[in-house]
Formats: sequence, structure tokens, C-alpha cells
Amino acid sequence: MRGVPSPERPPGFALIRLLLGGICNTDLELQRGYYGFAGIPGHEFVGEVVEADDLNLVGRRVVGEINLACGGCDWCARELGRHCPNRTVLGIVKHPGAFQEFFTLPERNLHILPDEVSNEQAVFVEPLAAATEILDQGAIPAGETIAVQGDGKLGLLIAQVLLANGYAVEHFGRHARKLAISGQAGARTHTNGDVPERAFGWVVEATGSSAGMETALRMVRPRGTVFLKSTVHDRAAIDWAGVIVNEISLIGSRCGRFEPAIQLLREGRVDVLSMISARFPLSAAPEAFARAAEHGNMKVLLH
Amino acid sequence: MRGVPSPERPPGFALIRLLLGGICNTDLELQRGYYGFAGIPGHEFVGEVVEADDLNLVGRRVVGEINLACGGCDWCARELGRHCPNRTVLGIVKHPGAFQEFFTLPERNLHILPDEVSNEQAVFVEPLAAATEILDQGAIPAGETIAVQGDGKLGLLIAQVLLANGYAVEHFGRHARKLAISGQAGARTHTNGDVPERAFGWVVEATGSSAGMETALRMVRPRGTVFLKSTVHDRAAIDWAGVIVNEISLIGSRCGRFEPAIQLLREGRVDVLSMISARFPLSAAPEAFARAAEHGNMKVLLH
Repeated sequence: MRGVPSPERPPGFALIRLLLGGICNTDLELQRGYYGFAGIPGHEFVGEVVEADDLNLVGRRVVGEINLACGGCDWCARELGRHCPNRTVLGIVKHPGAFQEFFTLPERNLHILPDEVSNEQAVFVEPLAAATEILDQGAIPAGETIAVQGDGKLGLLIAQVLLANGYAVEHFGRHARKLAISGQAGARTHTNGDVPERAFGWVVEATGSSAGMETALRMVRPRGTVFLKSTVHDRAAIDWAGVIVNEISLIGSRCGRFEPAIQLLREGRVDVLSMISARFPLSAAPEAFARAAEHGNMKVLLH
Repeated sequence: MRGVPSPERPPGFALIRLLLGGICNTDLELQRGYYGFAGIPGHEFVGEVVEADDLNLVGRRVVGEINLACGGCDWCARELGRHCPNRTVLGIVKHPGAFQEFFTLPERNLHILPDEVSNEQAVFVEPLAAATEILDQGAIPAGETIAVQGDGKLGLLIAQVLLANGYAVEHFGRHARKLAISGQAGARTHTNGDVPERAFGWVVEATGSSAGMETALRMVRPRGTVFLKSTVHDRAAIDWAGVIVNEISLIGSRCGRFEPAIQLLREGRVDVLSMISARFPLSAAPEAFARAAEHGNMKVLLH
């Protein structure tokens, strides 16, 4: 994807040079035609600011929030630009993504990285922020046991974030090799496919598949909460009578704040480096995407 | 349903004489074969205690919580016998219902009625408790505007409970005659079928139909909450991507505590008498059920 001319930099935007990009499942879904976005993908990145109105940013190593909010609506006033109805989204909705040599993002979206956080760690800030979002949404009492379902990249980050925040984690997945990462961090891991029924007050569904929803509803206790972290695209049917009779809460969960994610990496409380499967130069992006789509791979990076 | 012999009274149970019963949509669904219950229906009742271990109960006018909990499990210890996994349910699950001259219920399920609450008011305590359950589940900030969808009996009770607790209510339904009841209590009512999109932080779905779920999801704002009060029996599919991207909370909601419901009636803060459509003697129960199933009827009583 080289050869694309440098984008224009509107006022308030920074021109950023890509240092490292991470391929997310959303990028693979974009290729399959979801979201109707045909531009340059890429929303997990570490970059260096080349030009900006704010001269303090120039030359600095940054990550950036992916939602480009209008700044003028009620949502933006409440610091929830992630839900601004006028937003575009880096590499997903109407704003060219980060998988090119130069790209732009509003300066207010950027976070300067502390020196302790390497590029390969920092490229995980965006998905790690999505993992921490759960803690912003539900007031989970200290010390609770939380079941995490799914051992993909997001599931592994979620399990580690919960452990780093003092919760006990039971992690259910299918790959012992992947679950070793959360197991190392202190999770009890399960690969045999059996799940205990009505056993958990808190369940995080991160399988990436709508079938995971049924399993989560089997695992959760009456009056329990299921966080939905899999952005599924089918209209799956579930047993609503069970949700209502057992008074279950289902909470959709998506992007999160970058600050706690950067803090977790700075303090070395989450292992992201074990999740890197392969590194490709930006010029080999098609091969990198193909590798990322292969079964069993975790994070594929572009540099 | 006369002629059934008086049931035996196990220790800890009261023998109750029916004074007044209310037919609920659940009773109509039982007739259609849901829940696999073929016994005597009836769970909305006012009765007089004929025999009990606790002599203070004898001769008193009572209503009663419908879930017969085991009293020994964790749920019961947390005063959530409504979710006891060993429970039976009066007239719904493995315990004969109230639509007979005499029936039994554990003494601990009973609430003695204050004199200010008439029988015709008190027969609404059970559904009114279900309406107040919403306030036990979600911490809705004072003064919020809540959209209630559905102008059946439960929708009308919910709208009134919310108004009585200081919330503003926008009530969406199809029958001006029914909505007049919540309108009288202070709701803004809407019958034209149009709903504002992404407009409410709080939505209560009480249409009794799974189709109402889609409408509720159109009405709710990002990060908003939908309370699910319709016990639907089909496996309806919904747009999960919208729930997740917009971080919606869906909260199943069923039975509630009787205390706040009795208090609302005692203080005259909810009008239930306008919801009575017809009265039948117990001997005419079949006719009463037929009337209750007719379109446009509200509460049908058995005395």
C-alpha cells in the first residue's frame, strides 16, 4: 500500500508516519465486505507525528483513539466521542486507515507513549482499551470470579486485564497453546469444551461467534451479567424466556479508553508480546492479511 | 373449578380461601401449553387465611409471593427466593394455583393487607410488584425520562410506578383508551406507531411480543438500557452488532418484591381500578378466561 500520496492534513489533524500496525479481526471482516468500507484499512497502530498544529506532538511516538468525533455534540461533551453519531472511524468508517506510510488523525485523538512502552507493546493499546472497557461499564464487586469465553486475541487480553484488576478468571477456550498466556497470568484454563451451567455471576463472551452467546447464557447464573465483546454480524436467535425469567443482563461492549491500557503496559501487568505470531513489512500487507486469516494465528504485525 | 377437595396443609403452609383472583396473560399462555403445567392455574389473588401454624395469620386478608422457595439455598439466604433453583411456582410450576375455593402457600410467602387496600386493589399486588422490579434492578438516575412500550396491563402498571417514583414517562401503545390511564397519571402518550430513534437512555419493553424488542432497540440511545418485561416464548433474532457497537444493556426482568407494591396501593399512588374489565364468579372461570383472551380487555377478575 505504498505509493499512495501523503494525505492532506486538515487543521487540528496530525500527519502520522506508521511505525507499526496490528491486524485485527475487524480488518479481515472489512475485506469480506462488512461495514461497506473499501478504503485503506488499519486502526491498531503506533506512529510518529510528522506534522501537527501542536508543535509538542511533532516527532513524538503516539497511539490514537480510532473514533473521529465531531467535538460539538452531547456525546462529545460527555467525553463519549466513541458514540458520537457524526463520527468517522479510522480504517473502518469513512476515514482512511493506518496501513499506509502516512495517515492523519485529529490531534485530540493522540496519546504520547511513555518510553517504557515499546512499539510492539503499544500496538496492542487499542484492543487492550477495548478489553478494559468492561470495567468501565459494569461495577463488578472486588474479588468476583469472572468466566471468559474465547481464547482469541481479545479473550486473552480481557482475561489478563481482569486478573490485573484483582478478579479471579476462569478462561474457557479450545487452544491450550493460547490459553497458556492467560494461565501464566493466573487464570484457571479449560479446553475440554464442557462449561458449568448457571455457575458464574459474570461472563464475558469473546468467542467472535454468535454461537458463543448460547454458551454464555448457559454459564451465567440467575441475575448474572454477560458482557458481549464479539462483534457478530448475523441476526442470531436466543432463548429470551431464559433471559427474562432468570433476569440476566446482556451488555454490549466495544471500544474503551486508552489511558488505562497504556498504564497496564507501562507497569508491565499484561503480556502482549507472547501474542505476536508474525511480522511483515508494509509492502507485504497482502501476505500479512493472509497469514492473519489462517487458523491458529494470533497477532500479525506490519512494520 | 369448585368441587376439588380442600388441599392438605403441610407444616409451615397456610390454607387460604380465595376472595378474589386476577387472570394474567401467563394464565392464558398456560392454557396454550407453555411451561408444561396442567394443574389449577392462578397466581394473582387475595385470600383469607383459614388455617396456619402462625395463629396471627388466621382470619387475615393476605396476598402472597408466588415463588415457593426451598429456604435452604444461597439464593434463599440472599432473600432472592424468586430465583431459588428448587422453587415451585403457584399456579405455574408444580404447585396448584389460586383459582379454587381453597389452596395452600407457605406462610412466609404471605403479606397481611392493610385495611386501606381493597380486595380489588390488592389483586394487583403481584403484577405491580413485577412492575416495581425494574427499580430494584437498574439504578436509574432521578428525573430521567423513560420510554415504556406497550399499553397492556403490565405496561400501564410500569408507567404508573415510574411516574410515582418521580420519573418522566413517554408511553407508546396502540389504544388511546388504555393509554388514558397512564396519561391521567402524567405520562406523555403516543398512539401513532411512530417511535423516535436513538432517543431514550431507558426503555421498558412490555408489548408482550418479541417484535417489540426490535422497536425498543431502535428507540434506545447508545449506552442506554432496555428492560425486557415481556416473557416471550419464541427464539427471536435481533441485530446483535447494533447492541454491541452501541453498547446497549438488555436486562431481563420478572417478579418483584411485594412490599413496595402494597405501599404504592396503600398511598393511592397507582390507579388499578380503571384497569378492571370484568368480574366473574369462580364457577364461571371458563367464561372469564375467554373474556380475558378477547382483544382489548384488561384485567378480568374471579370472585
